[in-house]
Amino acid sequence: METYELVKSKAQAAKNAAVKLAVVDTETKNKALLAMAQALLDKEAEIIAANDVDMANAKAKGMRESLLDRLQLNHARIEGMADGLRQVANLVDPVGDVLSEKTLPNNLRITKVRVPLGVIGIIYEARPNVTADAAGLCLKSGNAVILKGGSEAMESNKAIAQILSDAATKSGIPAGSLQFVDIADRQAVQDLIHMNGLVDVVIPRGGAGLIKTVVTNASVPVIETGSGICHTFVDASANVEMAVNISVNAKVQRPSVCNAMETLLVHQEAAQKFLPVMLEKFFELGVEVRGDTKVQAFSDKVVPATEEDWATEYGDLIISIKVVENIYEALEHIRQYGTMHSECIVTEDEKNAEIFQKNVDAACVYVNASTRFTDGNEFGFGAEIGISTQKLHARGPMALPELTSTKYLIVGQGQVRK
Amino acid sequence: METYELVKSKAQAAKNAAVKLAVVDTETKNKALLAMAQALLDKEAEIIAANDVDMANAKAKGMRESLLDRLQLNHARIEGMADGLRQVANLVDPVGDVLSEKTLPNNLRITKVRVPLGVIGIIYEARPNVTADAAGLCLKSGNAVILKGGSEAMESNKAIAQILSDAATKSGIPAGSLQFVDIADRQAVQDLIHMNGLVDVVIPRGGAGLIKTVVTNASVPVIETGSGICHTFVDASANVEMAVNISVNAKVQRPSVCNAMETLLVHQEAAQKFLPVMLEKFFELGVEVRGDTKVQAFSDKVVPATEEDWATEYGDLIISIKVVENIYEALEHIRQYGTMHSECIVTEDEKNAEIFQKNVDAACVYVNASTRFTDGNEFGFGAEIGISTQKLHARGPMALPELTSTKYLIVGQGQVRK
Repeated sequence: METYELVKSKAQAAKNAAVKLAVVDTETKNKALLAMAQALLDKEAEIIAANDVDMANAKAKGMRESLLDRLQLNHARIEGMADGLRQVANLVDPVGDVLSEKTLPNNLRITKVRVPLGVIGIIYEARPNVTADAAGLCLKSGNAVILKGGSEAMESNKAIAQILSDAATKSGIPAGSLQFVDIADRQAVQDLIHMNGLVDVVIPRGGAGLIKTVVTNASVPVIETGSGICHTFVDASANVEMAVNISVNAKVQRPSVCNAMETLLVHQEAAQKFLPVMLEKFFELGVEVRGDTKVQAFSDKVVPATEEDWATEYGDLIISIKVVENIYEALEHIRQYGTMHSECIVTEDEKNAEIFQKNVDAACVYVNASTRFTDGNEFGFGAEIGISTQKLHARGPMALPELTSTKYLIVGQGQVRK
Repeated sequence: METYELVKSKAQAAKNAAVKLAVVDTETKNKALLAMAQALLDKEAEIIAANDVDMANAKAKGMRESLLDRLQLNHARIEGMADGLRQVANLVDPVGDVLSEKTLPNNLRITKVRVPLGVIGIIYEARPNVTADAAGLCLKSGNAVILKGGSEAMESNKAIAQILSDAATKSGIPAGSLQFVDIADRQAVQDLIHMNGLVDVVIPRGGAGLIKTVVTNASVPVIETGSGICHTFVDASANVEMAVNISVNAKVQRPSVCNAMETLLVHQEAAQKFLPVMLEKFFELGVEVRGDTKVQAFSDKVVPATEEDWATEYGDLIISIKVVENIYEALEHIRQYGTMHSECIVTEDEKNAEIFQKNVDAACVYVNASTRFTDGNEFGFGAEIGISTQKLHARGPMALPELTSTKYLIVGQGQVRK
């Protein structure tokens, strides 16, 4: 079969299953999630064996260490996937939630309820744990899912998806609810993102290249996630110790993730007291600093920043720093280079805090806290399928309610329109 | 300038204005809406003169009567546009609404608020009143708007847009908030739907061809609206008089609109009592009936329905009718041919009403009421920018809240992530 035909048959199977899955009760879904968790643990050897094949292939191809680490599975990581599924079983099911009810003057009763989106396509890269995470969240929110993982993790993903699908079906979930695209051909992604009528939404999870490909080419609706050029603005009135702590956390704690800080903006009146302490701390922690001329004046070790630096998501122990005249220059810089993900002001001035929160157009706007908190679990949602950086449908960390749509139920007694 | 450069410069101007418009207070926006309404009335002669040019061109090109009627403006219709803007001034401003607030165990305070989407592109066809409607709704919800109307209404739309933009700017709305694409080149639509980073969402309003072009080609997010193959299912227990009334209203009251009924499904046990009355009524009202063999048995005047009929939105005084074995065959037919817009069951059986509402996957699912009620004004929203038939972001009639996004405001006291 051609790649297109294969992808279409999987999409059609998912669509058929979605119709049934949409009305499956919460208890059955929870039972299935627990069974899926148990199945992962029971079949750990099978998963590890599949992962060994992926790891051997990746090493043979010279994959770099950090990516090999993402790809590798072991007992603790499989335990982690199972735990994730059990946590999802404990979350409140959003399907059926009544969002509004009213009776019109003509006695029509209108109720708006949450319903599943239908079929969700997840396109992701080398982390095999996404297979279990995404399957669990989609299932709990009543959605069929089509998983398209990176080819490097093909064997691991295939094993996990098969184990999960079998366990789900045995627990009463409609067969076909969990589809895995076991085709390494890159054309499969193109086909999947054009399955209008069968796929209701596609969520890309991965690097900037993958996301751009999906956003630019898809004809099915997309939720854009992930890319984050996040800023911290240290205002004139900032508490220096707090500003240093927040900046260190935002840059260093986990530099590879999207909510890490890439650029530090410093009010010119804060520069003298803040920058010497901050630079010393960054150098001590092995962070490469790229700064404008004003920052360079504070240390020989500062590399001159280029225009490109302001537009770069390093994902690494590198930071760009710029001294700005005032809060408005900071806002303008964020507007120009930010990706509408997470932005922070460190300030003791309530008025500036308000100006910043009101004027910054981003999913999450912080006052005096690290941008690293932008995360479904940290926000208390219990889970996360991704962080939306678009404005349509969902913005910021997405959990179960963000995987639903709505419908209006209208009950009358024979009303007709005048 | 090339079309692309022109469209881009308008998109950039809208983006620049959107940043300022997002924080304009409600009072200023309302004052502007009233001034815009007044300006339309004051400059009626100018609008009519522009419309005369469009009408003359359209007649010369042989435009058919029903489209000429949509295009024509007169005193009453301009009055109608002004009234619409005044009504929007009276609606509650959704911007700034607090959707949720909570304090996390680590003392971070998280507030989710409504914010404008940013820049909305509206692509529409021959009705010049959309220019005023869309401008008013976008402005009230704090969004800059780029209007791209049909070339047949170019002069009318240009005049209306200019008058509205001038009045808005004079009332304190940031210049550039209302952009009109005065380029007849079809390439302008293609350019507009690829302005990622400048345009936040595009909403097509018009026929199936326009909507398909936009949905298939756009790389900016789209809200799909409008196409409606709506069904009414007359259950075995239906009250015959009610079923006839609802069917007549859904088919005949305004056949050209998307919430009109296209196909009537009749339970085999209701056929004998219902169809003779129904068919007589339809013939009396000049409705062409296309039916399956069972329907044909009731009258010589029934035209045999083909497979194509079930998939056709007639938008005219034509109906297709099918006799089904039971509610499940009706559900399956709707699943196969429906466009997820509005679906109705006429029944006296509460259990079947529930089965229908639970299993039909559509924006609006009715029990014992005409599908013609699917409308923002009828639902009590006070306005409507379109009816979403997709599941992402908004579903069903869209009013002001559907033209907003959200952001999270997080306030801390120096918290960092562990």
